[in-house]
Amino acid sequence: MTELDVASHDAITLETAPTRYIEGPGIRFAYRRLGLSTGTPLVLLQHFSGNIDAWDPAVVNALAADRPVIAFDNAGVGRSTGRTPDNVAAMARDAVDFIDLLGLAEVDLLGFSLGGCIAQQIAAEHGRLVRKLILVGTAPKGGEEHLLAVLQEAFSQTDAPDPRLPLFFTKSSASRSAGLAFLKRTKVRKNDRDTDNGRPVTDPQAKALITWCATPDPEHALLHAIRQPTLVASGSHDTMLPASNAYAMFKELSNAQLILYPDSGHGALFQHHETFVSHVRTFLDTQPPAA
Amino acid sequence: MTELDVASHDAITLETAPTRYIEGPGIRFAYRRLGLSTGTPLVLLQHFSGNIDAWDPAVVNALAADRPVIAFDNAGVGRSTGRTPDNVAAMARDAVDFIDLLGLAEVDLLGFSLGGCIAQQIAAEHGRLVRKLILVGTAPKGGEEHLLAVLQEAFSQTDAPDPRLPLFFTKSSASRSAGLAFLKRTKVRKNDRDTDNGRPVTDPQAKALITWCATPDPEHALLHAIRQPTLVASGSHDTMLPASNAYAMFKELSNAQLILYPDSGHGALFQHHETFVSHVRTFLDTQPPAA
Repeated sequence: MTELDVASHDAITLETAPTRYIEGPGIRFAYRRLGLSTGTPLVLLQHFSGNIDAWDPAVVNALAADRPVIAFDNAGVGRSTGRTPDNVAAMARDAVDFIDLLGLAEVDLLGFSLGGCIAQQIAAEHGRLVRKLILVGTAPKGGEEHLLAVLQEAFSQTDAPDPRLPLFFTKSSASRSAGLAFLKRTKVRKNDRDTDNGRPVTDPQAKALITWCATPDPEHALLHAIRQPTLVASGSHDTMLPASNAYAMFKELSNAQLILYPDSGHGALFQHHETFVSHVRTFLDTQPPAA
Repeated sequence: MTELDVASHDAITLETAPTRYIEGPGIRFAYRRLGLSTGTPLVLLQHFSGNIDAWDPAVVNALAADRPVIAFDNAGVGRSTGRTPDNVAAMARDAVDFIDLLGLAEVDLLGFSLGGCIAQQIAAEHGRLVRKLILVGTAPKGGEEHLLAVLQEAFSQTDAPDPRLPLFFTKSSASRSAGLAFLKRTKVRKNDRDTDNGRPVTDPQAKALITWCATPDPEHALLHAIRQPTLVASGSHDTMLPASNAYAMFKELSNAQLILYPDSGHGALFQHHETFVSHVRTFLDTQPPAA
């Protein structure tokens, strides 16, 4: 589905939806809601350093074609107030507060990278709140990460138009070309764009992600506490959080489907957006075989 | 999509299609063709001991809703004449002869189990003939197999209604229930059913599969010769050809997508038939991102 197709049957897109705000004790959350008004809402949990406008409109708008989709800034990020915590558990509590403020009793979660760690924590602790779980480009507790090395490498490439190009895509011409198209899509919105925060957000976020991966969970207690149907997805050549994390999570989760994409890095979901959206739809909409 | 939905917009199904025959030098092949008359035909390569009627109508009919699908008996199997070879390379030559006899210049291949070994061999040797490749519940050359142990275990379960129940499904109630539904679907056709051959077919087939897995390919030359886009799929708990084979193949293939299904055995494609068909459609119909 092309962006044009989406735009033609959905008046409101990630690029055109107004940013809304909802206030809880101590934190005012920024968010955008698009797509259908009925159905289980899909709440998106964003990656390290990303805000609402870092999502790919090609993914978000296509997902919103048949369900409500909510993108938001967690505490301290973008135009949400409050302080960004330095640990995943506190980020999960903030995200649950946001979902509660919206009055949502049941949601699906799509967590990407650091957002996938938060999504695991929420799903494990809130069995009734989370219906289905999608974990993309992420790691289990005690998993393998190369965040700092990869960031250093990406920011040293001064000729790259955006550090996300080397971080999210491979060096192949197909992946690089998909990366440039992704960057272009994320820049279509001109007015009411989300703000970048810099180190007051990225420092605690980096600490949270690194601590998550440095904290062993030898019995996989957290993964075993997740009972929801889960889709685990990753790029074949993710240099930040390798695909072996996804395979390891698949093996420990009680009800998980694993999908790995070819010739792709951390941003596999944006590179293979058409295929990824189809896989998410199939996962969210298919009922399990009757027991 | 339910079987009823399929039946309502396709007059011809796996259960109702006439068995046809086409004669080449030395072998008369039995086959059924269903689905659309235009588009790249999807040729199915069957598992050890299986004939045309061992395919799941829920999978075949749904795939035939938007493409031509061809199920056939390779040499010596079912009602095809000739001798079943005891090696994958010869089985691949027979299958290519069949495709050539039909006058097909380009096909997609779906190979399941032993059929997946044959599909690898064909794709590696016939770059122009094969457009896209689907490998389900199979192993690379030198891969891990437990055929004889698993067969012995399955046939010792004298209370099972069919050895395919313990071979293809797990012991969970959901998987077992899906297995019984699968067996029921494969028995709907009453007239013009395919024939079972017994040991003149299964002995050489077992030798072919065991030899394939016992033949190391340390440089992965065969997988590296496969340049077609490939979908590799497996069940989480395949006891015959473990899912680790699928992960290993994904890592060596140049352009592969990996999908592993939860709580499933060798017959994951039949257990999760609705999801599997959706994944196959997405794979066959999605164009790669423009390079």
